[in-house]
Amino acid sequence: MNPALASLGARSPHRLVTPLDRVHVVLSHPSHPGNIGAAARAMKTMGLSHLTLVNPKRFPDDEAIARAAGAEDVLVQATVCESLELALSNTIFAVAISARHRNLGPEPMQARQAAPEILAQAENGKVALVFGNETAGLSNAEVQRCQRTVFIPANPDYSSLNLASAVQLICYELRLAAFDGSPPVITKAVPFASPLATNDDVERFYAHLERVMIDTGFLDPQQPRRLLPKLRRLFGRTELERDEINILRGILDAVEKRIDKQGADR
Amino acid sequence: MNPALASLGARSPHRLVTPLDRVHVVLSHPSHPGNIGAAARAMKTMGLSHLTLVNPKRFPDDEAIARAAGAEDVLVQATVCESLELALSNTIFAVAISARHRNLGPEPMQARQAAPEILAQAENGKVALVFGNETAGLSNAEVQRCQRTVFIPANPDYSSLNLASAVQLICYELRLAAFDGSPPVITKAVPFASPLATNDDVERFYAHLERVMIDTGFLDPQQPRRLLPKLRRLFGRTELERDEINILRGILDAVEKRIDKQGADR
Repeated sequence: MNPALASLGARSPHRLVTPLDRVHVVLSHPSHPGNIGAAARAMKTMGLSHLTLVNPKRFPDDEAIARAAGAEDVLVQATVCESLELALSNTIFAVAISARHRNLGPEPMQARQAAPEILAQAENGKVALVFGNETAGLSNAEVQRCQRTVFIPANPDYSSLNLASAVQLICYELRLAAFDGSPPVITKAVPFASPLATNDDVERFYAHLERVMIDTGFLDPQQPRRLLPKLRRLFGRTELERDEINILRGILDAVEKRIDKQGADR
Repeated sequence: MNPALASLGARSPHRLVTPLDRVHVVLSHPSHPGNIGAAARAMKTMGLSHLTLVNPKRFPDDEAIARAAGAEDVLVQATVCESLELALSNTIFAVAISARHRNLGPEPMQARQAAPEILAQAENGKVALVFGNETAGLSNAEVQRCQRTVFIPANPDYSSLNLASAVQLICYELRLAAFDGSPPVITKAVPFASPLATNDDVERFYAHLERVMIDTGFLDPQQPRRLLPKLRRLFGRTELERDEINILRGILDAVEKRIDKQGADR
């Protein structure tokens, strides 16, 4: 643990180990400390926590801490080492993240297709995702230390993903693959809804609406055009709730009362 | 075009228009210019180019330019406006990106599931992805101006995605839905008998409805309860067509005329 970061946090309390806990993000020769912090934050938002830095230009660094926001714990626990070889020791599977095709590198796979295999490997041991330097990317030698090359399908006219953005996208794909399309989300409250209106409720609303349309002169029963079918089509696709029917009929009641009252005043 | 940015680039040469070209990223009240630049870069890597800023704290700004890397053209062409309402004028479909659940907001959908529908809507007109302020997120009123709420499944213990990271992930999902595998499918059958109403049309309808509700005594402006948000929720899920707006406003006009006429007869 880095003394400069030691005060920032401690290892989080023990919890269930998932395959994501065995996936390590390795940044090779990162130049900008801001990107290291942003990568830590990106990892943590997707439930990853193990960061390894190979020869970072500046680390630890205040800019890394600032950009990490609430993910300083990932920085505190980060491992710093001098070569990719050391970073990959004890890994059973390493993936090079690279947009460039290498003649001699492993077959490139798209991130989404690669995610299930990466997780399957993580069931068996430590797995590494290897990201290159911001400007130069990964060298051929680095890519050749890996068992897969993974790319992010980007705009061919401008594929310049920020380093932390690349980390974010790969970790996102892993999280979604890990939790099989339905990852646990923040306590999702039951959305506001009242019970659905019955067919009778809805028909009474249509009758009421028709009456008001006639009373106000908007609908001429002799020449109804297609107003009612169009309104049925509109409200028919919404699956009106009981509460909503009450509001709509409340408006119609208010209109009728206002008209009657004025009529009576005359 | 912003004079301070005018030297940075011009509109890119004409090319094939895709649904992604009709998707606008709207950042509401962004605090940090660095995030604006990083969002522009994130957009461009995924082939999006239309950025709208609602009341940015600092823009244009050198930090935005620096973080945009090669995506300054997105900043140069960005639109700055004073309210979300203005930002959404002429959009036919708006999506609130929000992790927080709102009782009266539109039904939340996961980004991956929402992407095909967003693209399908973009076939018909301008679509907006609305992102909130870095600290406060989107207000309930802002969410209620949108037809969908979309969330990114994140670590429930730390879901603090950076703003540009959220932009990156949503744009990535859209790009993959647009270009990967099967063509976008409309998840919800929406018949398009008449063109969809624009946001401005819909807002004018809400304003008209509110006026009639007040005039008839149904809505007490001093004690509005939650009538308007509930009505926004109802009509927000239907994707109103222009023709339907005309009918609904025709009814409201007829009610107003009837009330006025009677008032005048007294």
